Order: sequence, then C-alpha cells, then structure tokens
Amino acid sequence: MKIAIAGASGYTGIELLRILSSYTDIEINQISSRKFTGKKLKDVFPFFSGKYSDLVFQEDIDIQESDFFFLCLPHEPSVELVKRIHETGKKVIDLSAAYRIKNTKAYTDFYGFEHKYPELLFKAVYGLPELFRDSIKNASVVANPGCYPTASILGLYPAVKENVAYGEIIINALSGISGAGREPKQQFHYPEAFGDSYAYKPLNHRHIPEMESVLKEVSGSEVKIRFTPHIIPVSRGMIATVTFKTDLSKDQLVELYRLEYRYEPFIRFSSEPPHIKYVTGSNFCDIFVDKDERTGLAVVITAIDNLGKGASSQAVQNFNIMTGREESFNLLEISHLGIVYP
Amino acid sequence: MKIAIAGASGYTGIELLRILSSYTDIEINQISSRKFTGKKLKDVFPFFSGKYSDLVFQEDIDIQESDFFFLCLPHEPSVELVKRIHETGKKVIDLSAAYRIKNTKAYTDFYGFEHKYPELLFKAVYGLPELFRDSIKNASVVANPGCYPTASILGLYPAVKENVAYGEIIINALSGISGAGREPKQQFHYPEAFGDSYAYKPLNHRHIPEMESVLKEVSGSEVKIRFTPHIIPVSRGMIATVTFKTDLSKDQLVELYRLEYRYEPFIRFSSEPPHIKYVTGSNFCDIFVDKDERTGLAVVITAIDNLGKGASSQAVQNFNIMTGREESFNLLEISHLGIVYP
Amino acid sequence: MKIAIAGASGYTGIELLRILSSYTDIEINQISSRKFTGKKLKDVFPFFSGKYSDLVFQEDIDIQESDFFFLCLPHEPSVELVKRIHETGKKVIDLSAAYRIKNTKAYTDFYGFEHKYPELLFKAVYGLPELFRDSIKNASVVANPGCYPTASILGLYPAVKENVAYGEIIINALSGISGAGREPKQQFHYPEAFGDSYAYKPLNHRHIPEMESVLKEVSGSEVKIRFTPHIIPVSRGMIATVTFKTDLSKDQLVELYRLEYRYEPFIRFSSEPPHIKYVTGSNFCDIFVDKDERTGLAVVITAIDNLGKGASSQAVQNFNIMTGREESFNLLEISHLGIVYP
Amino acid sequence: MKIAIAGASGYTGIELLRILSSYTDIEINQISSRKFTGKKLKDVFPFFSGKYSDLVFQEDIDIQESDFFFLCLPHEPSVELVKRIHETGKKVIDLSAAYRIKNTKAYTDFYGFEHKYPELLFKAVYGLPELFRDSIKNASVVANPGCYPTASILGLYPAVKENVAYGEIIINALSGISGAGREPKQQFHYPEAFGDSYAYKPLNHRHIPEMESVLKEVSGSEVKIRFTPHIIPVSRGMIATVTFKTDLSKDQLVELYRLEYRYEPFIRFSSEPPHIKYVTGSNFCDIFVDKDERTGLAVVITAIDNLGKGASSQAVQNFNIMTGREESFNLLEISHLGIVYP
Repeated sequence: MKIAIAGASGYTGIELLRILSSYTDIEINQISSRKFTGKKLKDVFPFFSGKYSDLVFQEDIDIQESDFFFLCLPHEPSVELVKRIHETGKKVIDLSAAYRIKNTKAYTDFYGFEHKYPELLFKAVYGLPELFRDSIKNASVVANPGCYPTASILGLYPAVKENVAYGEIIINALSGISGAGREPKQQFHYPEAFGDSYAYKPLNHRHIPEMESVLKEVSGSEVKIRFTPHIIPVSRGMIATVTFKTDLSKDQLVELYRLEYRYEPFIRFSSEPPHIKYVTGSNFCDIFVDKDERTGLAVVITAIDNLGKGASSQAVQNFNIMTGREESFNLLEISHLGIVYP
Repeated sequence: MKIAIAGASGYTGIELLRILSSYTDIEINQISSRKFTGKKLKDVFPFFSGKYSDLVFQEDIDIQESDFFFLCLPHEPSVELVKRIHETGKKVIDLSAAYRIKNTKAYTDFYGFEHKYPELLFKAVYGLPELFRDSIKNASVVANPGCYPTASILGLYPAVKENVAYGEIIINALSGISGAGREPKQQFHYPEAFGDSYAYKPLNHRHIPEMESVLKEVSGSEVKIRFTPHIIPVSRGMIATVTFKTDLSKDQLVELYRLEYRYEPFIRFSSEPPHIKYVTGSNFCDIFVDKDERTGLAVVITAIDNLGKGASSQAVQNFNIMTGREESFNLLEISHLGIVYP
Repeated sequence: MKIAIAGASGYTGIELLRILSSYTDIEINQISSRKFTGKKLKDVFPFFSGKYSDLVFQEDIDIQESDFFFLCLPHEPSVELVKRIHETGKKVIDLSAAYRIKNTKAYTDFYGFEHKYPELLFKAVYGLPELFRDSIKNASVVANPGCYPTASILGLYPAVKENVAYGEIIINALSGISGAGREPKQQFHYPEAFGDSYAYKPLNHRHIPEMESVLKEVSGSEVKIRFTPHIIPVSRGMIATVTFKTDLSKDQLVELYRLEYRYEPFIRFSSEPPHIKYVTGSNFCDIFVDKDERTGLAVVITAIDNLGKGASSQAVQNFNIMTGREESFNLLEISHLGIVYP
Repeated sequence: MKIAIAGASGYTGIELLRILSSYTDIEINQISSRKFTGKKLKDVFPFFSGKYSDLVFQEDIDIQESDFFFLCLPHEPSVELVKRIHETGKKVIDLSAAYRIKNTKAYTDFYGFEHKYPELLFKAVYGLPELFRDSIKNASVVANPGCYPTASILGLYPAVKENVAYGEIIINALSGISGAGREPKQQFHYPEAFGDSYAYKPLNHRHIPEMESVLKEVSGSEVKIRFTPHIIPVSRGMIATVTFKTDLSKDQLVELYRLEYRYEPFIRFSSEPPHIKYVTGSNFCDIFVDKDERTGLAVVITAIDNLGKGASSQAVQNFNIMTGREESFNLLEISHLGIVYP
C-alpha cells in the first residue's frame, strides 16, 4: 500500500511520518510541501534519519501515485483535494476541519468560506473511533477531529450520550503552542511566549461548532458549550477541564465512564487529574472523573497530546480501522515509547 | 519606623524585601528564618546587593524591636504570633491564611487545626484594598489575601456585590509554581515540572472557603464556587477564568466593572484576555470582561502576579494604607519597573 | 532635555523606554517604528501603562525635535542616521554595530556592507564605561557595545590590559533568545526552541572582530579569540566562560580583577559561577575568577542581562556619563528592582 | 533471560524500563527502590501502562533470581553489589561511576571513598562501544560511561587516538537538569531553575578523571582536560563544545572523524552544530567538526541525550553486545520513535 502525506512539513505531517515509519507493510511514497518543494526530508528536519529521510518534498501530491492519503493542509485546499481523491474511489483522512461539521453554515460563520460540497460533508465520517468506529471502518473520507474537540468530547461523551448532563457545559482548556502550527508568529516568538500564559478567543473559538454538532449527534438534543482555551508555555500537550450539572452521584458517574470506555485501548482512567507529560508522544487520553457535591457539578478532566490523540496518532488509529488492521496495531507500543519521561 | 519580616527567606518574604528596599523613610531591622538563622541575606540570596544585603536572619523576630510586622510564616505559627503582636498594640500584616476566614470551622475542615482565637479572627480585616480599604485604614491586624482569592474575587466583586451573578460560579485558574513556596518537592523538581501541566486539588482547594466567605460578606447571600486550579510551568503569574450566569448584557457588564473600579490605581482593563507576563513583577490586576450571549454566561478573566498583587506587593499596598501613605506610594513605579519584557 | 528613540518597538527600544520612564528631568518626545507607525505605545505593548503609554510611533524621528538620540535600528540605517545627527552637533548613542569597530574591513567581511564614514568611525567612542568612561564623557557619538562583547571583554579586560593572558583566548558563551531580536523566525518559534539548545555560527560570529579590536586597543597587541556562542532556551540572560593561559596564581588573578574593578558600581564578584537570573533586569555584570592549576588555565565566568548591561541599561549608563549625571544615577535602584526572583 | 534493575525508580532506571519493555525475548523480573519498596511501578509512575506496570519495587534485588543486572545505584553501594554479582559469574552493567576509572586514587580524591576492589576495577570494561566494543563483548562487568564523558570522548576520540590534538583540551558542556538525578534539591526547584543558567563545579568536576583516564588509554599519553559544565533549563539533553590545537586542516579533520566512525550506527555527522532536541529520547550522538584557521583550533561539537546515549540507551547498547545481539537491535527504531518533535 502506497501512502501520500500532503502538507508533510508541518507538525502533524512530521508526526505522521514518525509514526508510520515503523509500519513495515506500507510505503510512504509521496510527501508534499509548498515551502520545501524539492528538498529532502532530512535536509529540512536533520533529526530524521529513519527510512524515509531521503524522500523529496513535492509541490503537490499526485493522486494516481498513491493508494491512501493523509492531508495536513489548510482548510480550504483540503475541501478541494478531498473531493478530488474521493472521486477516484481512494480513501483519505483529512486532518483539517474541512469535513468535520455537517452544518455548512458553520463554515461561513467560523471559517470564513462557503463550503462547496455539502453532500460530501454528509458522507464524511468524524474520525473519533471511541464514538464512531463502526462508521469509520467503511468510510472513504474521514475527517480527523480537532485537538480541543477530541479532549472535550471524550470527557463528555458518556454523560451526554446518556443525557445526564444538564444545562450549559463549561470547558476550560489548556494547549501547548504546537497546536498553533509551525508558521512563526509574533505571539509565539520564544522570548514573548516564554513564561507567559493567557486565554484567547474567549468567546468564539472555531472548535465550538465542531464540539456541539458531534455531541448533538450522539445525544439527540442541542448541547451548548461555553469554551475558553488558554495557551500554556509548553510545546505539546492539552488539558480539558469540563464542568456540567448532573444528578448522578460521584460513584454513578465514575461507573458510567468506566463502563462506556471499558474496552478502549487508548483511554486510561486516573485517580488524580492527569498530567500532559503522561500522554506526550502517545495516543492516550487520560481521564479523571469526579463530582463536587457542594455545587452539584461534575468535574471531568482529560489530557491528550495535541499532536498525538489530538491529531496524528489518532489519524493512524483511524487508518488502522479503515485498512482492517487491529485498531491499536503498532500504536500501543509507539505510545509507550514516545513517552519521554522526565 | 522599624519593620520586621518573619519568614523572610521564602518567596513572599524576599519579594517584600525587594519592594520595601526602595522606601527611604522606613528601616527593615529584623528578618527571621529558621532555615538560615545566622546567615546574611546576601549569602543566601547572592543577587541581593541592595541596602539590606548585610542583614542577618534571626531565628525569631523580637516584637519589642520593631514597630510594624509582616509575617510570611506557615498558618499555625502565624495564629500565635499575630496574637502576640496584637497584644502589644502594634500592627501586623499576616500573609498566611491564619486570619483570613471568619468561619472557624473552615480551619478545622480545610487547614487541619482548631483556631484558638476566634475573637481576633473577627477583628482582623481582609486585606483586599479594592473591597475593604476603609477598614484596612484602621486595622491593627490585616489578613493578606491568598493569590487565587485575589484573582478570583477581583473578577467577581462588581457582579456579586450587585447581585447580578446567578447560580454557581465556575472558576478555572492557572498558577505558576512559585505559588507552592520555596521548599523543594518531587512534583516541582525541574525535570518533572518542565513541559508539564495539570489540575490539582480539583474539588477541595483551601482557597474555596476564603473566596466564598468574602463574597458572601459583600453580597449578603451565600455564594457557591466551583474552583479548579491548574499548575502551569512558569515561575510566576496567575490567571483566573471566571464564568457565571447573568441577565446583564455585555455592555452593561463592562460598564458595571468599569464603574466599580474607575478609581483603582492597580486595576487595568484590557480588551483582550490578559497575559501573565503583562503583570509579572507588578501590583496590577488586569481584567477582561465579556458575555457569551449564546449561553447567557459572563466570562471574566483576570491576571495577577501571584507573588505581587497575589501576595507581597498587595501587602505593601495594605502597608501604605495602614501607615497613612498614599495607597499607590512607590508601588506604581515599582510595578512598571518590575515588568521585565520580554 | 528631549529624547528620541529610533526603532523603539524592538526589545532594546522597549527596555530603554522602561528604564528612562523613571527619569523625571527628561522627556522622551519621539519614538519611531516602521512596523507600528501611527500606533500608540500602549496599543502595541498593552503592559506599558507608564507615563509614555500614549506616545505615538512615528515612521522616522525628526532630528530637529529632540536633543539626544538613542538608535535601536539595523546596522546600515544607523550608519546614515548617526552621521546626520552628528552633523547637527547633537549627541547620539547607537545600539547597533555601525560604529563599534575601527577597522572598516570588518564591516565588509562580517556585516556585508562598505562603511561610508570611516572618519566618523574613529571619532565614535566604544561605550563600555569600565574601559572608556573618560572618552565617553565628551563623546558625541557613542557606539554601545554588543552583548557578547560586553560579557567577554569585562571578563578579559584586567588580564589583557596587564598582558598576563597568553595565546589564544577561548570563549564559550550562552545567550537567551531575546538577543536575536523581536522578529519571528522559524528557529525561534516557541515549539522549536522549547527544550532545545545548540551552538551556532561556531566559527565566524560578527562579534569576534568587535572583541578583538577593543582588546587590542587596551593591550597594545594582537588578541586572538576563539568564540563559540550557544542558544539556551530562556528569554534573557548571557553567560561568557572565558579560558586563557596565564602565569598568575589564582590569588594574584583574583587580586588583579578586584583591584581593577574596585570602584565599579555595576560589577559584582561572586564566589561561585554567576547565575543569569541574578542579573536579569539589571545593569550588573557578575564575575567569577579562578585558576585551574592542573592545566595552567584561568577560568573567568561572567553573567549579564543581554538586554541590560548587554544593551539598554548600558546605554543609559553611557547616557548618564554623557549628560554629566552620576554614572549609576537611577540605574542601581532599577537594577535591584528589575531582578524578579524567583 | 531474566533481568533485574536495581535503583529502578530514578531517571536512568525508568528509562531502562521504557527501552527494555519492547524486547520480547527477555523478562524484567526484579526492580528495586529503597524509596518505593512495596509499591507497584504504575502507582509511582502513572504514565507507565506497559507490560511491566504491575511489577513491585523490592527493597533489594536478589542475585539468585535474575540472570543479568543493571545497576542504577549510588556509587558506593554499587562497588559492593557489582562485586557480589561478579562472584556468581553473572553479568552486570553498572550505571554508576564505581568501576569506570582504573586509578583508585581518583575515588579517594573525587568521590570521597576508598575503592575496596582495585583488582575488579581492572577487570571491568568501560562501556563505550565505539571505543571498546571488542572488550565489552566478553566482559562480565561493564562500567557504563558518564554522560559528560560520553559526549566529550566521542568528540575527541579520533583526534586523540591519532595524536593530532596538542596541548590542553578545553571542553565546555551544557546539561539538562535530569543529569542531576530525581532527588529534589533547592537549586533545581522549578521556580529557581526556570529561566536560569550557570556554570558549576568549574574546576573539579568528577568526570574529569574519567575522561582523562579513558583518553590516556586510547592515546598512550597523558591528556589534560579543562572542563566547565553548565546547567541549562531543559530536562534532557547535553552539548559538549570541544576545542583543541591541531595541525590538521579542516578537511583532514573531517575526514579523520568520518573514517573513524564510518560504521557506527549511532553516530551522525551534521553540517551545522547539533541540537539537543535532535537526539532527545534517542541513542544518537550527533557530531559537528570544524577548524578555525585563524587560531589553529579545532572545534568539535557533540549532542547526546544525557539519559539516552549518556546513560540508559547506551547501557542497552552494551547489553546487546554482551548478549550476542546485533548492537543496534531494537535501539535504532526506539531512537527514531523517541525523538518527539517539536
């Protein structure tokens, strides 16, 4: 099987290359990058001495030349490229937001462009295996979830699905800076971001419609989310602290979550709030569940690696499902080895 | 005027020394430290070459020898020492929690000791000048607020005072590690804390009763707070992201806050969520106020330096008030100069 | 006295503004920035609420409108602007390298442009007060030293001046990333620089001719320096570890340094190798002197703040000298207050 | 084959567990820790969900119960335990310094204890495969090198072996803080180490005799090293910047190094000074070689992970050799997967 990665010079692209390098039965035969067209992988990323280090970045990938596609492109180019790949009957996992939300209006409101392929939007499957693995199995277009939605939805799914979360859901999330991509920006220039932290887009982050639409799909009713993301000065890692009203006791709540996720290979429960360093480099989502009886509010805290379960290793999890492998194939070992402690 | 600082070798003690060094009309004549008894200030803190660098740490301070006292001690020793200083008629600012909460039960429940001087608890004034400056003026015992309560209460006060915040208040806060003190601990050993972040004490942090009791005092009714603190890998700085139901529109809310704080020298409004680096080294509290009309929830975000407005410079603000100085005396300049950017 | 700061939106410009804000007898009446022309200082740097916060960035400064000039511009524009200011008889401190090296060939070789005003090069005084304060007093053009040269030369001056350092001098230096300026770059994008460190320009850093020409001037003979700079992942701070052959014993060496610097207000000797955090935000240079008798090599280690003694506060020290103030005027206090520990 | 790891709760022990977890033909059947005796691995290190997560820390390991031993203990206990293991005829890799230096006087002078088994010292093989793989193959006691010596010796070996490095060798090294171990200390408390950097033990670091004795062994003559280590605020990673006089031209020098290391699986040459993040989590040593013709000095810069090639993965490399496996077995893949970029 020949694999192409479009946009392979960004953080999610490189992480895909790292993970897929240890698959012996596939061949990555195309990588593209507008910025580094013509350069070898190892010349742009000198640490990359693995088997694909001599691959040359193409300007664009050629759909004829590969069998399976990972797209790590901006949203708008993805809309088109996914469409074109789909028309050939080949499979694609899109790491952008281009096919994540069924509601086309969200694209106009939150992403600033009109989505031209609403019918394909409805065919695309949201690539969160813990919720949709059956659909992912036969999907030809998988929209790989955003990092904040992955951390948030996994913290809410059991409660929302069983309709035991009432009223507004309040999510405060912390993200490492790699979530903002590889393009240098003033606010992420090292001397500025060093020692700093702050909330951003406090009212209208693009991930809100993504979360609400998925949760509505699983619960059958409207879900309203108050979401405040914060930048923290690390490279990788994400925490979502989720609060909602519930009538369940702490024990019932914990039982509900454990039951729902009892066969999940990448969900680990923790008796203390999870650390981002416990999941960095892995495909794990660590979850802590508790209830504050004084206020009647449930507190669920999740930790993921924004480039792992929040992006690239989750894409590989989807790839395993779509290609008939065991879902955790290669990923469990990689997850343990990727955790560099301290 | 002769000043004593008890527990001067911790982070809040050293910060007091830094700030008070630029007062020319007072003399710090006693500093104490059990750990460094007999050593000179400059031998323990080699960077300290200012005028007090030759001061010697005493085992304990002598109440007879000074006129005004800052206590940077653990909670229990403070209970006693405040009492003894108070009996001499001298004034004291206590940076521990020993006299912050009127409800003695909170000490048994959250601090693990029985408070022996409930009557003095009721005489002590909570040292948050924006709320209680009139009482601070004539107080002989000022209980300097905790860092989380300072950031949280300043973000809530205008709304709670006017009873426009309904239901549970949800606070998610981020703190730099200096808030945990100077004593080395496994979880704050550099290689472990480096690149890490996590929530802690997610249900029962000690600062909850402090916040609730102060807010009840200003609103006249019970206030329930859901509070989740998080560690972020910086030395200094604190963010409180506060969410509550309100019927006020965004404009009304902003107006309410601006009006309440219009004469405050150390409160700055910001049109974007505040950065901790904008307040590090200063006595400022930066505030952002907004409303999410979709969910009906107000979002107020504050930033302080946990060792500044959250501890030592706030203690100096109280000192200015208690000694008849202008409240911002020396502090405004220090606040601007302390901000080391980038 | 009216002051202009050209290029005021970079790190050295902002640091000048911070320091000069506490001078009550001068007025900063012009700041320029090509990037932020027309914007207020406080709109670009929201933390800047001091007295100059409403100043508007001009595209260029007007030489007629101010009496004294600080230039924080790239090298080539500085060459011209210094010349034009000089022609009006006004004084200027140039923080670029445009007038630091007497040898015009160094500009062609290391900076890539031909220096058009060699005669003015020879009039300009190198603004390292510990070496040249008498000349600085009457200078009209002061070339403010680079950060690496400041840290290195102060670690070498006593030995080189007395000709007790033999053979090649080997300097290994560590610098925080603010030394590379405020312009975002790939290698200083937070996720990349986070947790990283490396040597760079290991053979031909531009500061080599600056160091060698100054040291030749004070010693009367050629000095050869092997200089390897390293990036460390902090915002501010610089260490220079200097090694050279000497016949002096450790005691003689220490005595030589202490004697030479005995009246220096900003040089502090330390009995352990200095920490960058002990000087961050200050104008201090901390120095450690020792000798390795096994190898016959002296080891001198210095620490400065690259934006302080390595740039802006040193410029203010020069300003004090040039305007007849006491050299440490305002700077000692600022140095102590700027040290934000921890 | 049953493996025991003594002192498994420190950083090198945990890293060994991480790496050895992916070997399918061995079983780690004993781990010891005085501090955590009786606790499960996963209870002390919650991120450790791999196959050994239920292993219980013993107070001591039982020599009868395992076939091969890794010791991650303090120096003195290692002296005894290595001796006892050796007497049973079993093999041991000791990660302490207990058997690294042939010269017993170095133990008295630099480590403060008298070495009781000089005869075993001479039997022990220094576990740097690039120099001593033939001896390692049949060794029963391998003394795993220190991190600074690994980085330094690999940067010097080709030149010293061929006697083309003259005079004193000057090494400046930078180390992440994990090199100081897992025990919390004041200077490594996060708020203190954050944003700081400094040289330490500038004259007499314990690794000097280790480096000099190994280099003397390969060159046949005395080697004198001037070594200054520096702390940098990262968890992992080490740079050694090595300077020495040589008559070789740059091209000859580069050729010499490339030839010597041409078959080494874990040595990578880089055309720019190497980054510590390029080797973090791996067993690689990246090397940059150049010559400064102006001063006649060679500049060799190496980067390793102090816990990888500087400790645990190098121990596994030795283990591969000692057990007849291919030297890079499992390690190359782990090295690539361990590199978490960004």
